[in-house]
Amino acid sequence: MDESKHRPPKSKASSSPVPKAVVSRLSLYLRELQHHVREGQETTNSGQLGAQLGFTDAQVRKDLAYFGQFGYPGIGYRCDELIKKIRIILGTDVQWPVALIGVGNLGRALLGYKGFRHQGFRIAAAFDANPKMIGRTIEEVAVSDLANLSEIVQTHNIKLGLLAVPAEAAQTAADQLVAVGIEGILNFAPVTISLPEHVSQVGIDLAIELEQLSFAVLKQRPAAD
Amino acid sequence: MDESKHRPPKSKASSSPVPKAVVSRLSLYLRELQHHVREGQETTNSGQLGAQLGFTDAQVRKDLAYFGQFGYPGIGYRCDELIKKIRIILGTDVQWPVALIGVGNLGRALLGYKGFRHQGFRIAAAFDANPKMIGRTIEEVAVSDLANLSEIVQTHNIKLGLLAVPAEAAQTAADQLVAVGIEGILNFAPVTISLPEHVSQVGIDLAIELEQLSFAVLKQRPAAD
Repeated sequence: MDESKHRPPKSKASSSPVPKAVVSRLSLYLRELQHHVREGQETTNSGQLGAQLGFTDAQVRKDLAYFGQFGYPGIGYRCDELIKKIRIILGTDVQWPVALIGVGNLGRALLGYKGFRHQGFRIAAAFDANPKMIGRTIEEVAVSDLANLSEIVQTHNIKLGLLAVPAEAAQTAADQLVAVGIEGILNFAPVTISLPEHVSQVGIDLAIELEQLSFAVLKQRPAAD
Repeated sequence: MDESKHRPPKSKASSSPVPKAVVSRLSLYLRELQHHVREGQETTNSGQLGAQLGFTDAQVRKDLAYFGQFGYPGIGYRCDELIKKIRIILGTDVQWPVALIGVGNLGRALLGYKGFRHQGFRIAAAFDANPKMIGRTIEEVAVSDLANLSEIVQTHNIKLGLLAVPAEAAQTAADQLVAVGIEGILNFAPVTISLPEHVSQVGIDLAIELEQLSFAVLKQRPAAD
C-alpha cells in the first residue's frame, strides 16, 4: 500500500484517454474522501478509500495513477488535498451554473435536490413551455420562457443543461440548448438524443438502473437447479 | 462480423462473474434492439448494435458472449429473439412490482416516470411518513403508512424498493425495507447506505452524473496551453 513512488504529485492530468468507468470511480472516491473529512479523518490510504466502496487498494491506486501521483510515503493521501485535486480533474473546483429545461415533477425534484450545490453545480435558470409555469419561482429559481433561453444562458454563462422534458420533446429541447452554446447535456428523458460531436451527453435512464438491480438480485439468489 | 460460431444458443447464463459494466451495456443493447424493432428492423448485427452507442462490434460480441451465443450465420441477431434473451438475463422477462418509499417531488416524478413499466417494472405501492400524503392516490398508486409496509410488501410480493427519501432518513428506511424481505434497493438519496450482504444496492447520485459531464466537457475543449 505504498501510495507514493517518491515522486512529486503531477499538477496536470495526462493526455491519454481515461476510461469512463475510471472517471465515475473518481466521483466515488471524492464522496468517500468527503465522508472521511466529515468524520474528522485527515489522511487515508488506497485500502481505506476502496474498502467502503468494495474496490481493492490496487484498483484505487491504478485509477488515481491515470491523473498523477497523489500519495506521500509513510502518510498515504492527505484527504483535503486529494479532494481538491480530484475536483480540479472533474472540473468542479469551480461552480458550474446549470440550466434546467422542464419544470414538471422531475424538474421540481431536481430544483430541490440538495446534492448538486454541494458538489459544485447550481441550477441558475429554469425553463418550461407551459405558460402556467413561466414566471413562477421554485426553490429560489425563476422559471422562464424558452424564448429567452439564449439571453439567460449568456447572462449566467451557462454551459451545462439538465433535460427533464418528456421523451417526445427531448430532441427539440436539446437542439435549442446546442443552438445557444451549451457544451454538455444531462438527459433524463428515456430516449437517445443526437448531438453534434462537440457537445457531451450523459444519459440517465432510470429503468437501466433498475435492470442492474434485478440482475444483481437474481444473481444473489441460490440457483434453482 | 460473424455473430455465430455455428453452435446453438446457450439457454443459460454462465456462472462466471460478469463485470458490472457489461451488465449496464446489456441494458443499452436492449434499448437499441427495441429501437430497431420500432423502426421495423427484424435482424441486426454487432456493428449496427454498437454503432449508435459508440461501441465497436468486437465489444458488442465480447459482451454478449458472457451469456451465450445468440447469432445465426448469414443473418446476425434476430432482434425479437435477442430482446427476449436479454430480458431473461436481466430478469425483466417478468414484471417486478416495486415499492416506492418517499412521495416528495422525486417520488412523484418516479410515479409518473413512463420508462419503468415499459421495461418490466411497476410501482405497486408507495409509502410516506407524512400524514398529509397517506391515503392519497398518485398516478393510480395509493400512498400508504410505513406502518403497513410489511403487509403490503407481502401482498404484492414486492422484492425491489425505490428509496426517494431525504438523505437523513435513508438508512432507517432502508433498514425497514430489509426487515420486510426486500432483496434490492435503488437508492436516490445522496448518501451511502449500509445493507446486509444478501441485499443488493444500486445508488443514484445525480451529482456524480453531472461530474462525468463536466469532465467530458473539459476534455472536449481545446487545451488552454
